[in-house]
Amino acid sequence: MTQLGPGRPRLEPRRRHGPTPRAEILDAAAELFTTRGYASTSTRSIADAVGIRQASLYHHFAAKDDILDALLDETITGPLELARRLRADPAPPAVRLYALARFDVHQLCAGRWNLGALYLLPELRAQRFEGFRRRRDELRGHYEELAAAVAAGSAPPQAWVLPFRLVESVINMRSDDGVAPASAPRLIPDAVLYLLGRHDDPAEIRAAAEDLLARLES
Amino acid sequence: MTQLGPGRPRLEPRRRHGPTPRAEILDAAAELFTTRGYASTSTRSIADAVGIRQASLYHHFAAKDDILDALLDETITGPLELARRLRADPAPPAVRLYALARFDVHQLCAGRWNLGALYLLPELRAQRFEGFRRRRDELRGHYEELAAAVAAGSAPPQAWVLPFRLVESVINMRSDDGVAPASAPRLIPDAVLYLLGRHDDPAEIRAAAEDLLARLES
Repeated sequence: MTQLGPGRPRLEPRRRHGPTPRAEILDAAAELFTTRGYASTSTRSIADAVGIRQASLYHHFAAKDDILDALLDETITGPLELARRLRADPAPPAVRLYALARFDVHQLCAGRWNLGALYLLPELRAQRFEGFRRRRDELRGHYEELAAAVAAGSAPPQAWVLPFRLVESVINMRSDDGVAPASAPRLIPDAVLYLLGRHDDPAEIRAAAEDLLARLES
Repeated sequence: MTQLGPGRPRLEPRRRHGPTPRAEILDAAAELFTTRGYASTSTRSIADAVGIRQASLYHHFAAKDDILDALLDETITGPLELARRLRADPAPPAVRLYALARFDVHQLCAGRWNLGALYLLPELRAQRFEGFRRRRDELRGHYEELAAAVAAGSAPPQAWVLPFRLVESVINMRSDDGVAPASAPRLIPDAVLYLLGRHDDPAEIRAAAEDLLARLES
């Protein structure tokens, strides 16, 4: 048995992905929620999957919905922080929208578990998840604001509601095929620009978006 | 108590939407699965919502997953049958794709419950739902085949994978806002054509698609 920070000693050697007990709990819960279902997963089965006692799990999370909330938050925090920084950036809207879509598609594809598949859970309509819903709505609002600034006159009316949906479609691709196509981080942002009426070669905007992301991440 | 076809007499007056006991069971299950969750709904609670005994429910469906399968099937049967008929139709691919997207968006928006939200359930990966998965994959294949035939050289590479995803995005819109925007049955098919590089006014294709649907439905 190994003592790992606060909580009780482990029953077994560590067997989950993650640098801390908290991260291991989140990884185990993410797997169980996305492969067995949220309602079908007990905190007991999460603790078992991590190899810790249920009491140790409660040291990190008071209830199962706190674990779900933390996982959902992971999927939103990165793109939402980026979107807030992009709002104040002087780069052209097309470059900022491309950067946001590229970043968001990448993180939705790269997570070990397809957490976006949890967005449609009826449980998320509860008061408990209002904070998450508000943050996701804010992210959607940033997409729509940027898309409206990018949309050319020739684009279909209201096409600015669709970039957010195209980005989240990688969740469905992963759910259907086990993995999103390797082309998604280029295809989806390219399609976003094209759908908004930007039909010139996207190479220049793509390169500017990469530079912008590198600048903001540094 | 009223005797309604096979099964036992009802405990209470009918209180569900549907012309037959089977349809009432499906309607109650659709509500519970989409508002409380599939795993959290028992056949007992479905029977209670209909106002019948659990034994009467089992007269119509041997198990809960048979009810889910029937509900999922409802969301696919119409568009899949249409797609099969469209395959052999002499109308131009753009008209056929528009008609398929228009029909499918309409039925995804018009159902009383947002059944498409069940597509991401991990339970659907079980062998039991292989038939449904195969039918949905076939529908997706029809979309991709038509979209590849429609795509102009200027469209983003692989854009033909996206029309199916744009159509299913109305499921997410309904989930987020309670209802898909009234514009969806026009916006989504218009966006599908536009994303594939068809930038002329879609009015002519839209009218031809409506005529085609009227002809095929008659």
